[in-house]
Amino acid sequence: MTIERKHNFFAGPAVLPLPVVEAVQAQLPNFMGMGTGLMESSHRSKQFSQTWAHAQSLMAKLFGVPDTHEIMFLQGGASLQFLNVPMNLMPKGGKADYIDTGTWSKKAIKEAKWVGDTSVLWSGADIGYNRCPTPDEYQVRPDASYLHYTTNNTIAGTQFLAEPVSGDVPLVADMSSDMLCCPRDVARHAVIYAGAQKNMGPSGVVIIIVDKGILERTEVDIPTYLNYRTHVGKIFNTPNTLGVFVIEKVLEWIDGMGGLEAMHDHNKAKAGLLYGTLDGSDFWKPHATTDSRSLMNVTWRIADNDLEPKFIAEAAEAGLLGLKGHRSVGGLRASIYNACPVPSLEALVAFMNEFERVNG
Amino acid sequence: MTIERKHNFFAGPAVLPLPVVEAVQAQLPNFMGMGTGLMESSHRSKQFSQTWAHAQSLMAKLFGVPDTHEIMFLQGGASLQFLNVPMNLMPKGGKADYIDTGTWSKKAIKEAKWVGDTSVLWSGADIGYNRCPTPDEYQVRPDASYLHYTTNNTIAGTQFLAEPVSGDVPLVADMSSDMLCCPRDVARHAVIYAGAQKNMGPSGVVIIIVDKGILERTEVDIPTYLNYRTHVGKIFNTPNTLGVFVIEKVLEWIDGMGGLEAMHDHNKAKAGLLYGTLDGSDFWKPHATTDSRSLMNVTWRIADNDLEPKFIAEAAEAGLLGLKGHRSVGGLRASIYNACPVPSLEALVAFMNEFERVNG
Repeated sequence: MTIERKHNFFAGPAVLPLPVVEAVQAQLPNFMGMGTGLMESSHRSKQFSQTWAHAQSLMAKLFGVPDTHEIMFLQGGASLQFLNVPMNLMPKGGKADYIDTGTWSKKAIKEAKWVGDTSVLWSGADIGYNRCPTPDEYQVRPDASYLHYTTNNTIAGTQFLAEPVSGDVPLVADMSSDMLCCPRDVARHAVIYAGAQKNMGPSGVVIIIVDKGILERTEVDIPTYLNYRTHVGKIFNTPNTLGVFVIEKVLEWIDGMGGLEAMHDHNKAKAGLLYGTLDGSDFWKPHATTDSRSLMNVTWRIADNDLEPKFIAEAAEAGLLGLKGHRSVGGLRASIYNACPVPSLEALVAFMNEFERVNG
Repeated sequence: MTIERKHNFFAGPAVLPLPVVEAVQAQLPNFMGMGTGLMESSHRSKQFSQTWAHAQSLMAKLFGVPDTHEIMFLQGGASLQFLNVPMNLMPKGGKADYIDTGTWSKKAIKEAKWVGDTSVLWSGADIGYNRCPTPDEYQVRPDASYLHYTTNNTIAGTQFLAEPVSGDVPLVADMSSDMLCCPRDVARHAVIYAGAQKNMGPSGVVIIIVDKGILERTEVDIPTYLNYRTHVGKIFNTPNTLGVFVIEKVLEWIDGMGGLEAMHDHNKAKAGLLYGTLDGSDFWKPHATTDSRSLMNVTWRIADNDLEPKFIAEAAEAGLLGLKGHRSVGGLRASIYNACPVPSLEALVAFMNEFERVNG
């Protein structure tokens, strides 16, 4: 394969492991030897059913998903889950608690308010969302149906390094930008959801892990596609079949890398290279406080902000793409998800050191 | 490319033009020379924005979509549109009329009942859904928000050969299984929606064409992702980027074939080969009445039903895949969408003639 792939630091859709891209190429004209292509084969075929089931079982193995939970591959992105979660988990007259760590939290809160009594226990809005809260900063209502949090914040570059404290109230997590970056305590969650396009696959699939017991106990009366119960134990309607195949291949790649503990070490090493550079000189100004630094999205400024457009332009010329901060906050950002390879980090750090030498 | 592609008569995900499959292969590692792959490039990139806009403009040109209508590429399949349509078009206390021509119509009706007063004007349930109604068989309520119909019925193998008559009431059409098979009067429709995976692309994209004027006049208060107004004039959240690229390539292929009039002729010629065979002998029993025969899904029985498993098995051995009727009705079905090539029809008809000779 002739390729001229550059260093991809985009926030998502994001870089995938090259063997996964090659597996898609290989299966496109003829999927699993059926004689029909990857995009052209029935979602009811034996071969696709195997793909679906294998993606589920690998996810369960790698992420430690207990039998109490169902794994689904649906559509509509996290944006639709912002609504689906409260619709499915908040009974009439119910309550839900939220932690606001940035743009994506706020979007989740907005949709929950369509459904019921939604309380924001803590917000980082006044501190530029530069950290996640400590447990002494919020108090979960004991009669809340769940506590919702965003594990990783792509725009601010912060991450919950441990689960929030919620007593007997189950957790709900939007893990769109860091699912499978490290082990998590899945059993404590009523729902985990994540758009696939950052850490797990292409865009157009949302991965949802749901506690079936909580679904059984919660009485709600909602339309078919939006009801998680519709999707338990079966493929209800035509899924994004190519997307699920890619997720299966990404999971196989993670398994081959040694699983989530190994992936966590890999991610800490990569992020360490970049944070080490940022901490090494007053030329750079990292955004997140050290106790909330994301392993996935590193955000920073140049002390002399005026140098940032030059940095972005020269980096792009050097083959380092996607380093501009989100349009809502500016500055610089490097998204370094699971599949971002060490050489990309090494190239970035070398470029930064040279940029500082010339402009510092 | 070494391929062993068989004749693909599956109902969907279905066969795509080979040049489209090859275009995906080519762009996977490096999309439009950006240095990031097709699945790995930002939906906010200039390149993907061009893809999106080009897919919209080609759709408008080929399908005759007027400026009054918005073209969207969203997620969740037709199954989510069954709900989205009434949510967006039926104001509080409103009414909607439906024609029931089979399984997919019934699913649409079920979801509309969550929203408001839903009337089924005509149903083919008692006649095995073997035809679509004539205009004298139903009476649209003049105060209905819309009349919903399913243009083509994959399971029964029937198709509306002309739009229903609805007076001043706008039409809503589920065109999942025949959009772009022939010209349609788009301007008469408040909404047209279609899962892409039969006639236009891979699974995981739903194409929606909405009359913006009707959206402005209809007062509804609904959550963000489900509200069509959210998606007018912008890409709201991360779409299925690969899927939209494939749709662009399919539209280019249709354009190169000569547009929808040429495609219609092509489809009539293909279907004619198969219906001619079915009509030529009492060995075969076509299901749909002649005035409602689908150009996309041809359904039939063998007069001696017991021969059907043998037919399906021997056809598969001969490289003719997907000829089993839907599990809900049995019998035989050949799905012969736009991209199904003439040689596949010729191979099928030759096989059928030989099968009749041996078993007749």
